[in-house]
Amino acid sequence: MSNEAIFQMGQKALDSQPFSQLIGAKLASYKDGVVELEIPVREELFQQNKFVHGGVLSYAADNALTFAGGSALGPNVLTSEYKINYLQPAIGEKIIARARVISAGKRQAVCQCDVFLVYEGEETLCATALGTIAAISSEKANKEK
Amino acid sequence: MSNEAIFQMGQKALDSQPFSQLIGAKLASYKDGVVELEIPVREELFQQNKFVHGGVLSYAADNALTFAGGSALGPNVLTSEYKINYLQPAIGEKIIARARVISAGKRQAVCQCDVFLVYEGEETLCATALGTIAAISSEKANKEK
Amino acid sequence: MSNEAIFQMGQKALDSQPFSQLIGAKLASYKDGVVELEIPVREELFQQNKFVHGGVLSYAADNALTFAGGSALGPNVLTSEYKINYLQPAIGEKIIARARVISAGKRQAVCQCDVFLVYEGEETLCATALGTIAAISSEKANKEK
Amino acid sequence: MSNEAIFQMGQKALDSQPFSQLIGAKLASYKDGVVELEIPVREELFQQNKFVHGGVLSYAADNALTFAGGSALGPNVLTSEYKINYLQPAIGEKIIARARVISAGKRQAVCQCDVFLVYEGEETLCATALGTIAAISSEKANKEK
Repeated sequence: MSNEAIFQMGQKALDSQPFSQLIGAKLASYKDGVVELEIPVREELFQQNKFVHGGVLSYAADNALTFAGGSALGPNVLTSEYKINYLQPAIGEKIIARARVISAGKRQAVCQCDVFLVYEGEETLCATALGTIAAISSEKANKEK
Repeated sequence: MSNEAIFQMGQKALDSQPFSQLIGAKLASYKDGVVELEIPVREELFQQNKFVHGGVLSYAADNALTFAGGSALGPNVLTSEYKINYLQPAIGEKIIARARVISAGKRQAVCQCDVFLVYEGEETLCATALGTIAAISSEKANKEK
Repeated sequence: MSNEAIFQMGQKALDSQPFSQLIGAKLASYKDGVVELEIPVREELFQQNKFVHGGVLSYAADNALTFAGGSALGPNVLTSEYKINYLQPAIGEKIIARARVISAGKRQAVCQCDVFLVYEGEETLCATALGTIAAISSEKANKEK
Repeated sequence: MSNEAIFQMGQKALDSQPFSQLIGAKLASYKDGVVELEIPVREELFQQNKFVHGGVLSYAADNALTFAGGSALGPNVLTSEYKINYLQPAIGEKIIARARVISAGKRQAVCQCDVFLVYEGEETLCATALGTIAAISSEKANKEK
């Protein structure tokens, strides 16, 4: 698939996910094997200390990992598992999750994702994640539609 | 702390998290060392196949892990890291995340969480998570307020 | 497969692993879905403070997870990934790793493992792990032989 | 600390670990923030298919992560937890684990490690790991000596 086709595939998936709409996520770019997912920060995404809630960073990492996996495995993929380490309080105007494939076979891909907060133009790495993306058999994927 | 005090501490934290309000999470119970967090399922929490989005299960696991950790470490805690395995498509009317402490020291606790979907009264285990909760020094916690 | 057949399968795998021989691991039991792997503690397994080295606990968890997965998926399996949390300094005469399947499909199983140290007859939970075991296609498994 | 001092600290720790001697690990280098740990491959480190046993890769990742953490936190450190994904069968003459700090505070550091097998001069990435290293209070560290 071309980079453009992969981007379109990811954006279409995002657009059809009500939860991604609720969060306000959009695909920003796909190039050189790196998927970039963006979320504008708004008060509804905060925890009690006015930082972005960890659950939002987890969502961003999880979704970006899935898209990175999809770039290697095709559109019918899901996240099997991932681990996330929170590194810094998440303060800023925008969340950027950047994910890439580390290693891919036919049925699964291991992907890595860094989650940044942009504050006054500066990026801070706030979380890092590592996970496995699995291809769903197309038969099963059709049944699920 | 009494079980009731721990429950109140957790509910108060949830009530002050705008993102938890957006998700619709509430603390259901705290007894015998098990924290139970519930989220009614609604369409806004879906991914493209009308399953609950993995990000919602991650949020539920992350928050329930934090509350379990807080039951051992006190109110000023945060999730340092966790891993989640998705096990089954998340279909049902209600999400229940049950978390408990596996091992706790003074500064951190290792906690475990199972996430269930309730469908017509039957529970299905849809995800399982393992993570580390850290106490924030009260000095730092005050600054963050 | 019968419990006895699963036990034999695991013991045979262990016996054919030079590294497991170097560590001194043996399968102790398989019943009620729980695999039990044992390692007698000796000085060669220590780190600098005369505790059992974390790498030995990791080995024990990894191998016990694989055997648990094999009980559901058959003999041609491998660990895809796992996470381990170290909980307590590992002091004692014997290591026991107990693993079980949490959820299994046809191609992979998610398994959980607790690693204990036995000291004067008392067990202490020293590490806990969560991981994914994958079936290798028998074609590939034959090629690997 | 100078790079040389950090290297000496790590080598000294390795030399005092009987299990690292049993495995045959040595510190190869420390520069630009990257710790490199090497293990010559020998038959004793194999699993049943003549690949290096996953437990050896886990040991390598765990130890390299600890040393990376030690470069930021000082000599009294331990691995709290890590996750490892196995990517390729481990075939070759030498194992190289390369670890670096992603983010460090005063009490803990999040570190990343790639594990390579060298076969006829070519490196293959066989596993990747992500984990948390914690500083032990010097009081506790002294007691443990």
